[in-house]
Amino acid sequence: MRYQVLVRLKPGVLDVQGKAVESGLKDKHFDGIRNVRIGRVIELEVEGLGKEEARSQVDEICRLLLANPVIEHYEILEVA
Amino acid sequence: MRYQVLVRLKPGVLDVQGKAVESGLKDKHFDGIRNVRIGRVIELEVEGLGKEEARSQVDEICRLLLANPVIEHYEILEVA
Repeated sequence: MRYQVLVRLKPGVLDVQGKAVESGLKDKHFDGIRNVRIGRVIELEVEGLGKEEARSQVDEICRLLLANPVIEHYEILEVA
Repeated sequence: MRYQVLVRLKPGVLDVQGKAVESGLKDKHFDGIRNVRIGRVIELEVEGLGKEEARSQVDEICRLLLANPVIEHYEILEVA
């Protein structure tokens, strides 16, 4: 089973990287770019487990290792 | 117009972060996790341009600032 996990800063949390990109774009005269937010995408495969068990393991891994639940939220998508 | 850009390492390029996550998971006895690949997800808004022009601007920004075309590829998705 293959999964894609999107980890993003919660709304309202200052995105320093995103602000740096916005400012870099302004310097290069891309003036219409707004609200740049930067997160992580993690792709992984789970072997040897049923569908439900695999998903709940990915959820556990997110909380344990992939996302910081204080400032980030995550979304788990199944990939074909 | 709102876009989501996924930037990922090309297949075959060593993913050091991904390997570190895999090894961390093994230490925690998640033994069935394979092929962890870590990339970036960038969300941004383009104002004041038509649909086609906006997308081609995002493409230009990817090449210029968001992705390293030598080792990464990117995918642009339109977000509702």
